[in-house]
This record gives sequence, C-alpha cells and structure tokens, in this order.
Amino acid sequence: MPLSNSQDRQLRERAAAVIPGGMYGHQSTGLLPDDYPQFFAKAKGARLWDVDGHELLDFMCAYGPNLMGYADESIDAAYVSRMRQGDTMTGPSALIVELAETMTAMVTHADWAIFCKNGGDATQIALMTARAHTGRKTVILAKGAYHGALPWCTPRPTGATPEERANRFFCDYNDIASLEAAVAAAGDDLAAIFAAPVKHDAFVDQALPDPAYARRTRELCDQTGALLVVDDVRAGLRIARDCSWATLGVQPDLSSWGKCFANGHPISALLGSEKARKAASQIYTTGSFWYQAAPMAAALETLKRVRETDYLEHMEGLGERLRSGLAERAAAAGIGLRQTGPVTMPLFLFDDDPDLRQGFLWSSQMLARGVYVHPWHNMFLCAAMTSADIDQALDAAEASFAVVKAERPALGPVAKLSFLLA
Amino acid sequence: MPLSNSQDRQLRERAAAVIPGGMYGHQSTGLLPDDYPQFFAKAKGARLWDVDGHELLDFMCAYGPNLMGYADESIDAAYVSRMRQGDTMTGPSALIVELAETMTAMVTHADWAIFCKNGGDATQIALMTARAHTGRKTVILAKGAYHGALPWCTPRPTGATPEERANRFFCDYNDIASLEAAVAAAGDDLAAIFAAPVKHDAFVDQALPDPAYARRTRELCDQTGALLVVDDVRAGLRIARDCSWATLGVQPDLSSWGKCFANGHPISALLGSEKARKAASQIYTTGSFWYQAAPMAAALETLKRVRETDYLEHMEGLGERLRSGLAERAAAAGIGLRQTGPVTMPLFLFDDDPDLRQGFLWSSQMLARGVYVHPWHNMFLCAAMTSADIDQALDAAEASFAVVKAERPALGPVAKLSFLLA
Repeated sequence: MPLSNSQDRQLRERAAAVIPGGMYGHQSTGLLPDDYPQFFAKAKGARLWDVDGHELLDFMCAYGPNLMGYADESIDAAYVSRMRQGDTMTGPSALIVELAETMTAMVTHADWAIFCKNGGDATQIALMTARAHTGRKTVILAKGAYHGALPWCTPRPTGATPEERANRFFCDYNDIASLEAAVAAAGDDLAAIFAAPVKHDAFVDQALPDPAYARRTRELCDQTGALLVVDDVRAGLRIARDCSWATLGVQPDLSSWGKCFANGHPISALLGSEKARKAASQIYTTGSFWYQAAPMAAALETLKRVRETDYLEHMEGLGERLRSGLAERAAAAGIGLRQTGPVTMPLFLFDDDPDLRQGFLWSSQMLARGVYVHPWHNMFLCAAMTSADIDQALDAAEASFAVVKAERPALGPVAKLSFLLA
Repeated sequence: MPLSNSQDRQLRERAAAVIPGGMYGHQSTGLLPDDYPQFFAKAKGARLWDVDGHELLDFMCAYGPNLMGYADESIDAAYVSRMRQGDTMTGPSALIVELAETMTAMVTHADWAIFCKNGGDATQIALMTARAHTGRKTVILAKGAYHGALPWCTPRPTGATPEERANRFFCDYNDIASLEAAVAAAGDDLAAIFAAPVKHDAFVDQALPDPAYARRTRELCDQTGALLVVDDVRAGLRIARDCSWATLGVQPDLSSWGKCFANGHPISALLGSEKARKAASQIYTTGSFWYQAAPMAAALETLKRVRETDYLEHMEGLGERLRSGLAERAAAAGIGLRQTGPVTMPLFLFDDDPDLRQGFLWSSQMLARGVYVHPWHNMFLCAAMTSADIDQALDAAEASFAVVKAERPALGPVAKLSFLLA
C-alpha cells in the first residue's frame, strides 16, 4: 500500500532547483525510506498531515520540539498575545527576566540564563564560557555524540578547518577508563567535558547514563577545574523537570537547552551555575532575534504546564506501554527488536540488520498504516498522545512485523545506507 | 528632564541576579547613556514604549528587523495563520520551496537558498560553503566589519581559540591596495572574500562602497577562484530590492540575509549562485527551528510588500529629509555633525568628540524628547515612518543641539567609553 504522493513529488522537483541537494540538514529525507514524505501541510496534537493529505501519528515530534502537542492552544495564544504587543524590539521585554527566573528556579544547578535560538548556539556559548572561565582550550566529547552543526562539533566536517576542530579529545560514552584517558591526554589544558544526558547517537543503540560514569565525570571536572556541560537540548524535559543528570544526583556547571521548552517556538538557552557567571558575562554572544518576546511568552506557558501537570508521567506511561507492547508483538512474530533509550525517546533497531533493510521495511509499513517512526534516529513522545494512539501504533506494528517476517528472506540491500556496512 | 524609570530599574536589578552582566549582546545598554531604557513593553509601527510607559520614535528598528513597522497587521496575520496550521513540524512545509523561489527570483545572483535563524548562521554557512567549494581555508575580511558573534568573526574574542581565528587576513574597506595585499598574502589558499555592502562599523563614520573597490573585489575572486560573499544581513532591503552590491553592478557568489526580510520574525538565509550549489549541498548545516513554516509565511508577505510598494523610495525620501534637516539645524547651532551611511541607515557623530561625550548628551536629550537614536551604531529607518515623524525628530534635534552647544564646554568624559581614547 504505497502512499500516493504526487504533491510531495512535485515539491521535491521544485526544491531540487532552488535548495542545494533538494533539502538540507536533519529534516532532509535523504537517508529515510523513499516513500517518506519530505513536506508537511498541517500538524495538530500528536498528528501530522503530509502535503498529500495523509494523516500520520508522529513519533518524531519535529525531532523534539513538539512536547505538549502541535498547535497547542494556550501556548500559541501566549505567543500571539505577546507578538501583538511587541516581539523583536530595540531591546528585550520584561519576559527575558521572568523566563530566566523561571528556568533558574526549575533547574537545580542554574543561577543564570542566556537565551538564544539554535541548540547549537547554546552549546557554542557553553564552550566559549568554559574556555573563558579556565583560560584553556581542550574539550572532551563522547565519540558519536551530537552537539550541533557548527565547525567544532559538526558530524560532517566538510567546510570546517582542522584548526576549528583542534583541541578536542574523545571518550566512549559510559566508559570511565576512556574518559580518564581523555582527561589525562588533555593534561593541564582541559576547559570542559561535554556530556549527552543519554547516549542518543544516530544509527546505534541508545544507552542510559551509568551513574558511576556521570559521577566520575563530575569528579574529573572538579579535580581539573574544567566545567561540566550537560547538553540537554535534545533530552531536556523528557527525562526530568530539571537537568537530566539531576536524576543521577550529578549537577553540571552549564546545561544547554532548546527544542521543546517553548513547545516548538524558536528559543534555546544556556543555563549556568554561579561559578561560570563571570566568564559568561565576558564573552560576546548575540543574535538578531534572541531578545524576541513572543517565544519567551510561549516558554513561560510551556514551563507552567511542565510544573503543574503530569505531562512527564503521562509520557512515561505511554512510553512503557509502547515498549512492552512492541516487545510482545516482536517476540510473537519471531522478530529480534532492540528498544533502547528512555521510554519517552525510544529507538528501535532490528537484530541482524546492519544496513537497516528490515528497519526500513518496517518503518515504511508503519508509515503506510499512518504511523511515522524513524528507522535510525531516536524518536520522541509528546504529552498530547493517548493510550489509544499507542494502541494504534501497536496494531500497526503487529501488521508491519508480519510483513518484515514474510519479506525478510528476500530483502535487498539499502543502497543509501551502504556506508553503515563499511 | 530625566526619564522616570522605576520599572526599568527594578527589572535591571532582577536581571543582574539571573542574566550574566545583567544583559548580553547587542541589545545590552551597557555602552549607552545611563538614562537609556533596557526593557521595552510595546512596539507598534515606528514607535516603542519602554516599561515605564515612555513613547519613543524608534530609529533603531530593533537593530534592523523592523522594516515595515512593528506589529504589522498583514505580515503578522500571515505568521499566525501559518502557525495555527503547523509551524515547527517533522519536516518543512511547501513554503520553504515557495520562499526559495521568491528570493532567488528577487536577488539577481541567487540560484538557491538555505534558510536558517541567526544572521551568523548565514555567514557561517557562507564560509563553510566557500571552504568546501575551494578546498582552501583563508578568508579575507575588512578590519572592523561585523559578520556575527561566532568564534571566527566575533569582535570580542574572549572564549574563542586562536586556531578558530586562524586563516584570516584583513584589508581596509574601500582600499584596493590593502585588498590586493591581503589577496597576495593569502597566496594559493584563498577561499572567500567577505564584503559588507557598506562600511557600517560601530563607533566610526560609515562609508558607501567605492564601485571600483567592489569591482576589484569581484575580479580578485574570479582570478583566484575564491568566492565573493556580500553580507547583507544588516543592510539588505534598505539599499535595494536585490543584493546591495547589485546597485554597483557587482554580483557576489553568496549573499547572507537576515534581520528584516520577515519583518522581525526569526529567519535568515544564505543565497548562492550556481557555482556554489554543489559545495552548499555537501556541508551539513541545520537547526531545530530552521524549517519553521510561520516565519516563512511572514517572509513571503514582507517580500510581497517589498515588490509591490514604494517602501524603499518612501524610506529614502524620509532619510533625505532627516539628513538635510539635521544638517541645517546642526549648522544653525554651530555644531559639527557628520552624517554618514545610506540615508536609510544613518549614523551621526559629532566633530571633536573622541569619547562621544557630545553624542551621549545629544542622544539623551533626544530620548527625553521621545526620539530613540543611537550614539555610535548605525540606525535604521522603517517604512512605517512618516514625514511628521521626521519633523518630530528634527524639532527634538534642534532643541537637543542647543543643549549640546550650551553644555559642551563643561562636559566631562564618558567613563564607559574611555576605551575609545586608548
């Protein structure tokens, strides 16, 4: 049952003329199954409609920003009301203060906030703050972790210089020995250790943080004077109502936030502790729209929902229902399915599927049944989902597992993912 | 007549606790006269209201984004309508194609577009595209030109490494010999020459581009294979309905856009010519909110206004009225006032005023009379201004010149600008 997709095809042809490669960045469907739509017409609650009118239960949530449901009425009303009073002005509104107060009250380690637009703005400012604080240059990252697309951290370095990517050492996530080796290699030049709150790398199983690894990261920062940065851009508010590592009892010096804290309205933030305040005040960082009032109004409304509702427990319950339901159905079908990551940010990979041919087939089958899943990037649940939505996904999954089982022996390679076999 | 500013003072005290240095970036009032408000409550048309209720005719226009008037009804209606259908989704809407078609049709050199959020995103992508296209690293910049706050170009390098700022050579704006010397110094490693469309540096007189300088920049790029980047983030749509250097007959390979093409809604863009398309498709660049549909709807509405109205000629007429009126009044008062830059983006500096003590006094006097001017950064006119607004500014200027003349002999130094005397 392939999707009819004539509008999408027409738009792709037009896009090929005026957008390099037809689309750029993480929302390009270049590495998704060919039947995945590139363009969307509408979004409401937990659902998307592509430009050909197909309704899709969306487990990507805009790659994170959709936390409370697309087009949430009270959050969007806060945005519009503030927009009409004045949005991008010659200076900030009072909301920048109110939002900084709200976020520092919510996040245990945080004493101050800087607001920006991209998640990558927040991680870049974190790095600059750590370098200014320490007077050193080296940063330690986990191999494969994503912290943005700027030269120092982009996963595809075309166009970045080796100099921009100097002063970096790498460890393996959750591997204390490799972390200690990286710290030793940094010698007396360690400015920061960046940590993803969970391992949510593309194409591989996710991993929750080992508490001992998190604690050791904190200790090594304390011993060396380096700053600990938890990059909560992707996972923030889907694990805790605090920095995600607060659940482990580990407090960073800096945490980067983005994507969902204004429910998809454009704002990101760097939060920091007292120790890093002076350095943060010494760097120059700014952007044309960073003082916009309307996204701050939307953030305040979103964070009120975060504080006052069980949105997180609701998502976790749905995530458990999805995980156990999929496990049962995969097992019943004789399919080896690995489900990793927090239940609110799941990833599904099939056993014995190095180029994801089974995952691609299953995902396409899910899509044909009205459920948008991603074959190799962590997904996201949102608070607008219901038990009935999860049951819809489970029904679709059962039928899709049956197709995978039947067609698996004859499946050919996925040419666009052949790099995974290299 | 100092402004009463109790709300602003209270907010500054709260901000000092939760924002590093009390405020960051270009919208901090740290280097403005002490009576300038930091926080604003409302904006409509050409006017701002600060949090203490003072109405101000605003010659900063949000540092550029306000092109057609704050809270423009049809542009904001386009934003809201699209927002309610779906804004930040799991993929872009058809509007990304429509906007790319619209901008490539409008800008002579442009064959493709990439949309992003910050002006600095667009200049960063331009640099990466040029490096990918040439396989080289060196970039030539004009001394003092602003292209963003990322490590490679930030005017205050605290927190950036020397490595990130390597591979750069500098010339003097409009000085062909210095440009040629920089090109010679780059040898066979020149990836790009960045050009501001006008010299709009802070603290110094602005300068329009010498056409011979612009043509020579193009020639040098053609001879070396480097890409010419015109950074139109600040000046775009206030000089031409095309890339600003198109008025000189010089077409760049890449142009960066931001601030005002969605009238203050958050979107920026890199436009490029066919030559650079392949390289642009090879770099990885993205951001959480770059595919947002609502700012694209606002951009389409703004650009329709750009095409279909005399907004530019209207602003130019007002700018001429302001410039000639100020010249007359300054001369009549015996004040030496230098007015530089395009009339739609003026800067005013006083003769014999190295630490801007006259400029600070005059600006404060203008503010007290309800006119927001900037003492050292280029200003911006918007299309919502009227002849009556300009006349209000001229009346305020006449009175303010008189105060400067009377108080000038006894003026003390401006401590916060003492670095200008160094």
